Amino acid sequence: MSIPNSSEIKGIFRSLRDRNPLIHCITNYVTVNDCANILLACGASPVMADDSAEVEEITALSQALYLNIGTLNQRTITAMLLAGKTANRLNRPILLDPVGAGASKLRTETALKLIEQLSPDVIRGNLSEIKALAGFEMATRGVDADLSDFCIASRLPAIVKMAKSLSHRWKSIVCITGPIDVIACLEKGYLIYNGCDMMPKVTGTGCMLSAMTTAYLAANKNVIMDAMLVALCAMGVSGEIAQERMKQKDGNASFRNYLIDAVCNLTETQLIRRAKYESA
Amino acid sequence: MSIPNSSEIKGIFRSLRDRNPLIHCITNYVTVNDCANILLACGASPVMADDSAEVEEITALSQALYLNIGTLNQRTITAMLLAGKTANRLNRPILLDPVGAGASKLRTETALKLIEQLSPDVIRGNLSEIKALAGFEMATRGVDADLSDFCIASRLPAIVKMAKSLSHRWKSIVCITGPIDVIACLEKGYLIYNGCDMMPKVTGTGCMLSAMTTAYLAANKNVIMDAMLVALCAMGVSGEIAQERMKQKDGNASFRNYLIDAVCNLTETQLIRRAKYESA
Amino acid sequence: MSIPNSSEIKGIFRSLRDRNPLIHCITNYVTVNDCANILLACGASPVMADDSAEVEEITALSQALYLNIGTLNQRTITAMLLAGKTANRLNRPILLDPVGAGASKLRTETALKLIEQLSPDVIRGNLSEIKALAGFEMATRGVDADLSDFCIASRLPAIVKMAKSLSHRWKSIVCITGPIDVIACLEKGYLIYNGCDMMPKVTGTGCMLSAMTTAYLAANKNVIMDAMLVALCAMGVSGEIAQERMKQKDGNASFRNYLIDAVCNLTETQLIRRAKYESA
Repeated sequence: MSIPNSSEIKGIFRSLRDRNPLIHCITNYVTVNDCANILLACGASPVMADDSAEVEEITALSQALYLNIGTLNQRTITAMLLAGKTANRLNRPILLDPVGAGASKLRTETALKLIEQLSPDVIRGNLSEIKALAGFEMATRGVDADLSDFCIASRLPAIVKMAKSLSHRWKSIVCITGPIDVIACLEKGYLIYNGCDMMPKVTGTGCMLSAMTTAYLAANKNVIMDAMLVALCAMGVSGEIAQERMKQKDGNASFRNYLIDAVCNLTETQLIRRAKYESA
Repeated sequence: MSIPNSSEIKGIFRSLRDRNPLIHCITNYVTVNDCANILLACGASPVMADDSAEVEEITALSQALYLNIGTLNQRTITAMLLAGKTANRLNRPILLDPVGAGASKLRTETALKLIEQLSPDVIRGNLSEIKALAGFEMATRGVDADLSDFCIASRLPAIVKMAKSLSHRWKSIVCITGPIDVIACLEKGYLIYNGCDMMPKVTGTGCMLSAMTTAYLAANKNVIMDAMLVALCAMGVSGEIAQERMKQKDGNASFRNYLIDAVCNLTETQLIRRAKYESA
Repeated sequence: MSIPNSSEIKGIFRSLRDRNPLIHCITNYVTVNDCANILLACGASPVMADDSAEVEEITALSQALYLNIGTLNQRTITAMLLAGKTANRLNRPILLDPVGAGASKLRTETALKLIEQLSPDVIRGNLSEIKALAGFEMATRGVDADLSDFCIASRLPAIVKMAKSLSHRWKSIVCITGPIDVIACLEKGYLIYNGCDMMPKVTGTGCMLSAMTTAYLAANKNVIMDAMLVALCAMGVSGEIAQERMKQKDGNASFRNYLIDAVCNLTETQLIRRAKYESA
């Protein structure tokens, strides 16, 4: 199975910086500022708009749509559906981050409705969230991945299998992130081994990853599976660089800044040298 | 009157790190990101959800409920009441932060309604806010404590007396924070002398303190008065550590990061060595 | 044409620190935390409130009103109008930041309605936004200034002319910011040359500038054109100081912190020595 080589990864990385796509984000108010700053850091531009009276125009101006259901409400759900239908009509990529799916019926059902009505190009969540959407028996713990669900090595084959099966069911790329990240597009799968321990200690690393991934999709519409791979490697490598920068007294607030800084300064050379991935 | 000793303080501090409680926050959009990061820093996990269609389930999943009325509106007030009633039914601690009480009828009346209908375990505000709720003659200045209201030494006895009286009236622990912090539970009172000058120069130090206090309550349900004491000492000590870290050119933005970092790295030894408190 | 001298600039700068005005902000949830922190940094105090049930009281408590239409919705538009009418009645300065005008009909029309009904003292936007409001032929790209619209030297005279013309039309001070900033009050114009390359790489530098400018207006109600000049110089100089502080590995997240820190630590001497402005 083909997997992108260094030259292809560089091309995808450069394409985002060169094209500077505008990303329409309908996302939660907890981490929205970090999402905006990481989009600027990686080479894209953010626009946040969540009112039904304007989302169709904003999506039409943008190169991709990022939907994140954290702090959803009836007003923003309606806006997500309208924006999504515009994205579908204009052939703009959509990424759905089902934050907290499984924690409430509203979140699970909203995520499933968005999947059914919009067919997002990519669905990215942690294992708890994806299992909740899949209807597997599960124990959810708010927006965190359940500890028992971590992608430990022994369970990877089952997780890859589930991701591929869901990719068939939803006709989407399915991405499950954790200590090891899994991407599945029908029968094709990738595993990504980058990242660091500090990432779950900062709120919104998942939201930021989804935002940045949407930017990679926007700039690489013809190779979206590979664009996702590069996005996940870029985030993981940036996390590693950020963690190496930690000094005594630094904690999760400094780590957050270092992470966005690392995305801002990431070079092709760093990315190629550190990216760790394989087919699955 | 008994006051916790070092060993009890350590136990309360460790309990939060060991139990990693999930805290449901319905809070303002100004400082919500900092609240989430300080919860992660102190050993808890945040979940933000403010829509009536899901708050009951989210509260039920959580170990405590944090209600903060900054940027309130009719939609979120309804959600606060629903979440609060669930917390009451399931015996989850509730902390109410009446941000800006006295600045508008909506805030004062909403805070009083939440107190009446939910009997929060803890009500924490600055002196202006608490006086507004108490119905004392007062001059409020937005969400800041009025300068004339500062807990100067000469007025402490009167403030302690008011806090105890309100604790009786509301059947809640009442906490009034400022240069010196006061906690009152019926006839029992504590004074906390930790903290630093920079804290009022950052938005949301009060909101963050309330969020972190809620986490201490969640992990120490049987000793909530002492858990509050430890939370206030931990925040004050973290502020002192953060201020000592300030270098030339650092201002309030760096201080904010240092504060959350200090909470993240706080040790039992630092806490015990620096905590300054007494009975009142 | 008179332009403020060093002594007048110092007076305006000191007035803000001395008076510590309370600023009522109805602003977007993307950058609201940064707006609050920059207000604290420059010597003001923020209060955020966006519900119709309380905005009139909050505006009445405050010394100025900051309206920013990023992430607007029907609920907050109503609140902006109510708050604005209160500000008019009580003679409080209003600054309007028409974020994203031109990107949607809702934004353009809302900004024009606010201008018509409230006659804001100041309207501050980037060139795309102001042109959209002026009805000029334009290409908007979300909330970013269109690259082709940058205030390059050759186009400055035309931009100054447009700003003066709009100042007549709207009976407001019109401020167009970019690499070079333009302020126009009827026939009087100023150009400001401070600032740095990093500013567009952080979300919300425009929002923060508008918030800080509102604080300068509040503390200098009798010289608002000059107060605006000082606000723009202070922001630009702070940006330069922040950029000079950048070390290897620092990116846009660190720059954001350095910028707010620089505003917090800005001295009269730094401001006078670095401010670059002239009549136009």
